[in-house]
Amino acid sequence: MRIAACFPAVALPLMCMNAWADTPVPPQTMQQVLGASKPTDWRTLDPDNTLYLDLAAGRVVIELAPAFAPLHAANIKTLVRAHYFDGLAILRVQDNFVTQWGDPAAGEAGEHDKARSLGEASSTLAPEFERPIAREVPFTRLPDGDVFAPEVGFSNGMPVARDRRAGKIWMAHCYGMVGAGRDNAVTSGSGAELYVVIGQAPRQLDRNIAVVGRVVQGMELLASLPRGGGALGFYEKPDQRVPIKSVRLAVDVPVADRTPLEILRTDTPTFAALIESRRNRRDDWYKVPAGKIDLCNVPIPVRATNESRPKP
Amino acid sequence: MRIAACFPAVALPLMCMNAWADTPVPPQTMQQVLGASKPTDWRTLDPDNTLYLDLAAGRVVIELAPAFAPLHAANIKTLVRAHYFDGLAILRVQDNFVTQWGDPAAGEAGEHDKARSLGEASSTLAPEFERPIAREVPFTRLPDGDVFAPEVGFSNGMPVARDRRAGKIWMAHCYGMVGAGRDNAVTSGSGAELYVVIGQAPRQLDRNIAVVGRVVQGMELLASLPRGGGALGFYEKPDQRVPIKSVRLAVDVPVADRTPLEILRTDTPTFAALIESRRNRRDDWYKVPAGKIDLCNVPIPVRATNESRPKP
Repeated sequence: MRIAACFPAVALPLMCMNAWADTPVPPQTMQQVLGASKPTDWRTLDPDNTLYLDLAAGRVVIELAPAFAPLHAANIKTLVRAHYFDGLAILRVQDNFVTQWGDPAAGEAGEHDKARSLGEASSTLAPEFERPIAREVPFTRLPDGDVFAPEVGFSNGMPVARDRRAGKIWMAHCYGMVGAGRDNAVTSGSGAELYVVIGQAPRQLDRNIAVVGRVVQGMELLASLPRGGGALGFYEKPDQRVPIKSVRLAVDVPVADRTPLEILRTDTPTFAALIESRRNRRDDWYKVPAGKIDLCNVPIPVRATNESRPKP
Repeated sequence: MRIAACFPAVALPLMCMNAWADTPVPPQTMQQVLGASKPTDWRTLDPDNTLYLDLAAGRVVIELAPAFAPLHAANIKTLVRAHYFDGLAILRVQDNFVTQWGDPAAGEAGEHDKARSLGEASSTLAPEFERPIAREVPFTRLPDGDVFAPEVGFSNGMPVARDRRAGKIWMAHCYGMVGAGRDNAVTSGSGAELYVVIGQAPRQLDRNIAVVGRVVQGMELLASLPRGGGALGFYEKPDQRVPIKSVRLAVDVPVADRTPLEILRTDTPTFAALIESRRNRRDDWYKVPAGKIDLCNVPIPVRATNESRPKP
């Protein structure tokens, strides 16, 4: 848990004590850290909690986080398995905020009767905006603090914040985080309308809405879409909307059509070394290492499974 | 200077003392704050320090900040007046990082002899990565701290950070900030290659490169471009590059072709009220006000000059 012990308080550490081995480790670039990573530093995505959002432009891979939003994750899986999203569309792209998708008819006055049925899925859910701190929810703390929360760090690859006094932990709205849109009622989110953060982390949304997971590949497809000209970035004309070919749960896709990915584990000395490599850049370009990092600036490396080196 | 006095330490202030009037002000939404703003809360853009970057898709308006990067601002104006950028292109769009433009031939090995001449402009400049704190450089402090710098706030509409112990102040790499690309040598930036931040604030760049200004309108045109498939997000094929029609200094453009804009001043009680309205959202949607705000989450409102209400 004490990854933070690896980060000295001085601005320009030349050597850093490895919290696990208690031996000095030399400064490294991120490439060096990844190059030296072991197969056990990586985990494969769980196909039962991985969504493929397929657009004409390509595939977006989303990892769900049932530890934080179990009801929402289950409801989304029910919708996906009923092919709810197939043929729906990206409806909203608000610059420096979110890209959002769902059923165009669901949100329009006078069009509700044309909205697609949610089938077996619930139309309302208990708000899963935060959850109790618990032993089974890991937390690897970042050392540099946070403007919004008492503590921030990572939990199974998700950027999270927590408040030990309140006994709560929640997923943070960093770039690429996926949430379930809702109306004013806290129970009005169902997962039938989803958004992803495409700009500066809108942390004011934290604890106000259910975050359900994170885009681990394909963010550029959602972030580079034309911005909508209507209020809140909604597309004004139906033909501006970006059609969704399909959304599938990876486990339901034939193995040959899956996108096998590995994510760097966030509870390892390798990840701690990666963070240190980003807090203090070592390449020739940087002249003044920041000595700090913000939660939403930490990259979470992903690679194709077949990139992993052969196991001994 | 003590705008921070308006922000109580408690998480949910129902009333807030106005630091200037010492009278309680009721909680307001941003729309209410802007609706109640006075003409003197706004300033018009200085046409002598405003660039129009014209693309086929529309116009990007950039405000230069000569108080922070006088040599770079002057060099960029020399380049612009020599029509240096006209017919050049956007070369690089790296997801969640930057969009960058300049001369494709300038960066390519073996192509340097095809690079466009900088004319009267300098090819190297002293690094203007930070500057001394000075009375003539205003600073309105934000109340909630910062992960990277001892203090953050605004100076003439630019997000800035400062270190009083070091006596330095610098512009911060928030969304929409424009900087002058450089190679490894700190003097190698000239303003002939410019970038704009299109994702989570890459604050590790602060004090490592010259920030020259900020996009005040048209960011969506630069942020929604297809990401480049090459290393660092460079476009791999010349026909993927986005042509620049022209870059002009506003003062050199006929008045009828200018884009007259007003920016909300950042040193006023109105701006302090706007910040408070964003720290603690008052609309029906938000259930848990953040009580905090990050430097790069603060919107800096802009409006067409003809939107300003008639003066009494």
